[in-house]
Amino acid sequence: MKFNKKLANIETYEAGKPIELVVREFGIEPKEIVKLASNENPYGCSQKVQDAVGSIVQNMALYPDDSMMKLKDALTKKYNIKDENLIIGSGSDQVIEFIMHAKADENAKILINSVTFAMYEIYAKHIGAEVIRTKSREHNLEEFYELYKQENPDIIFLCTPNNPTGDALNAADMMEFLQKIDSDTLVVVDGAYMEYAVFKDSEKAVTPKELVEKFENVIYLGTFSKAYGLGGMRVGYGISRANIIKELYKLRPPFNITTLSLEAASVALEDEEFVNNCIALNFEQMKRYEEFAKEQKIDIIESYTNFVTLILNAAHDSTQISDALLRRGMIVRNLKGYGMNAIRVTVGTKEQNDRFFSLCSELL
Amino acid sequence: MKFNKKLANIETYEAGKPIELVVREFGIEPKEIVKLASNENPYGCSQKVQDAVGSIVQNMALYPDDSMMKLKDALTKKYNIKDENLIIGSGSDQVIEFIMHAKADENAKILINSVTFAMYEIYAKHIGAEVIRTKSREHNLEEFYELYKQENPDIIFLCTPNNPTGDALNAADMMEFLQKIDSDTLVVVDGAYMEYAVFKDSEKAVTPKELVEKFENVIYLGTFSKAYGLGGMRVGYGISRANIIKELYKLRPPFNITTLSLEAASVALEDEEFVNNCIALNFEQMKRYEEFAKEQKIDIIESYTNFVTLILNAAHDSTQISDALLRRGMIVRNLKGYGMNAIRVTVGTKEQNDRFFSLCSELL
Repeated sequence: MKFNKKLANIETYEAGKPIELVVREFGIEPKEIVKLASNENPYGCSQKVQDAVGSIVQNMALYPDDSMMKLKDALTKKYNIKDENLIIGSGSDQVIEFIMHAKADENAKILINSVTFAMYEIYAKHIGAEVIRTKSREHNLEEFYELYKQENPDIIFLCTPNNPTGDALNAADMMEFLQKIDSDTLVVVDGAYMEYAVFKDSEKAVTPKELVEKFENVIYLGTFSKAYGLGGMRVGYGISRANIIKELYKLRPPFNITTLSLEAASVALEDEEFVNNCIALNFEQMKRYEEFAKEQKIDIIESYTNFVTLILNAAHDSTQISDALLRRGMIVRNLKGYGMNAIRVTVGTKEQNDRFFSLCSELL
Repeated sequence: MKFNKKLANIETYEAGKPIELVVREFGIEPKEIVKLASNENPYGCSQKVQDAVGSIVQNMALYPDDSMMKLKDALTKKYNIKDENLIIGSGSDQVIEFIMHAKADENAKILINSVTFAMYEIYAKHIGAEVIRTKSREHNLEEFYELYKQENPDIIFLCTPNNPTGDALNAADMMEFLQKIDSDTLVVVDGAYMEYAVFKDSEKAVTPKELVEKFENVIYLGTFSKAYGLGGMRVGYGISRANIIKELYKLRPPFNITTLSLEAASVALEDEEFVNNCIALNFEQMKRYEEFAKEQKIDIIESYTNFVTLILNAAHDSTQISDALLRRGMIVRNLKGYGMNAIRVTVGTKEQNDRFFSLCSELL
């Protein structure tokens, strides 16, 4: 059977190893496994969310409210925006997918950072668009601007804080950059980890409402998968001008968010205290990673997120180190596939981090 | 801002009215509203599923097991197929989306029944493919074959039992039809309501394993949204030859099924007794619709599903009737948009059906 020729250039994406697979492959007991690979919230999600979802399990038979009224009300209130400025996706991934299909085609050019979130390229390949990358590992807006002038891309992705490196742009620098971009180039500002950055340094704080008011060609992305502790529930969103949201809506499959996910995300927004506590704990624990790196003489990128990127020196290979950790029940993300001899580690709970430091000290 | 020109031909899909919207629009109390519009299982889902999901709400923070090991093990066992023959989607809708993007492009032709599931056309429009329809309201394989020879479509959709009409093909007739189709035309056999059809008449029973063994160009679709009572959880699947599944996998976004949905669907397969009881009750109650239609002199299409289609006579307009029912808190599906002066009603519980008969008698 013949398929669409674009598929020839697509490789099947392999997500990080779930705990279940490590159990099966290495025969390690689930309770012995620590997963610091996917930047989930190590403190779980709010007890209020758990209670709310637990109390409506009988509603699993009912199709989701496709108007997403409750969640949209909560999000528009949080960001002080209108309904027409908001679209909700099955993770912010799905909003990226809508953006790609709505704005680009096989003749399009997509400008992204040298090292950044893998899904930008994956969705670009789905439509056969060309991906152009900057050179520097961290976002460099001058490089972005040079490539923008040279290549005239259809979409630019700025990921701030950036995954998998953890660095973040100064909001003022980004606003200045955005002013220089033509209104027919769509700029995506992916703020999946923004809650962490805002806590650490107010200069990194991007305000979705301000982006929408000032720019007709910018879309902000947010997610419930990180600080809100709902990685398993697949809820993210895009905030932009109404005319852009309207086009993205045409590509949204009905019922893209489950009944329980809608409830979980809505209630999560009612417990900001939980989120703030988790973020405070995150940065307390992150200090320990910074100290550990100093002791071990490992380079670390200053992180505005809930993960740290440890850049190994030439004596160690990130694939070997991450494999060795895996065999000991510690799942981290090897960044070799991103062209870096580095591992990305989610900042876990105190006990999880103890375990990481202990195992890692043995190996390095 | 300019968008992909395909979007000009796409209208935003409006799903059926959720209970929440009726509450808000008409000020009716939620407990006074009966929704017989979306063919959900009126008996909900298995208590075992509710217990299992309720017991893992603390896992909402963890990304789903993207290998879907537990659910895949359960489904391959149920259908006696291999892992390589199975793909799981966010509803069978998402598998339809993968199929469309993998096999078709803007030059493709898609052959579907005159009246059938709306998502086939919606996803065809997403890629700009041409949709060709048969003439008869119910599936007529001779018409399908004539159009196949004439138009050489890339994909044919057979929906059996068909939504929103409820009729089903004889499996033997369908197998004979499939033998005449060229191996480069992909035939989708959508069995979303197959559990109901099999119960009522074994001649309608399509066996996915047999399809996969006999044909290199057929994919079977199934769902947990109907008989399994998990409409809110968005889990469906496709069963086909390994080479086809492999191509579809390239388009699957990682983590397309939530952590709780994977658990719900896996456990649902362990309680077939619940499903069989629901289906038996469904056909008991359906007899009452047949009697009601006879009394009211309304035409009804014989249904192999959990819904009935009532074809109104010229004295009544389906839009007026469904609006009048809605104001009284009874949500049904108006089929005017499908070119029929008809309403589709989910067969509910005894009490829900009593209410429908009572309200409908007043209006007709």
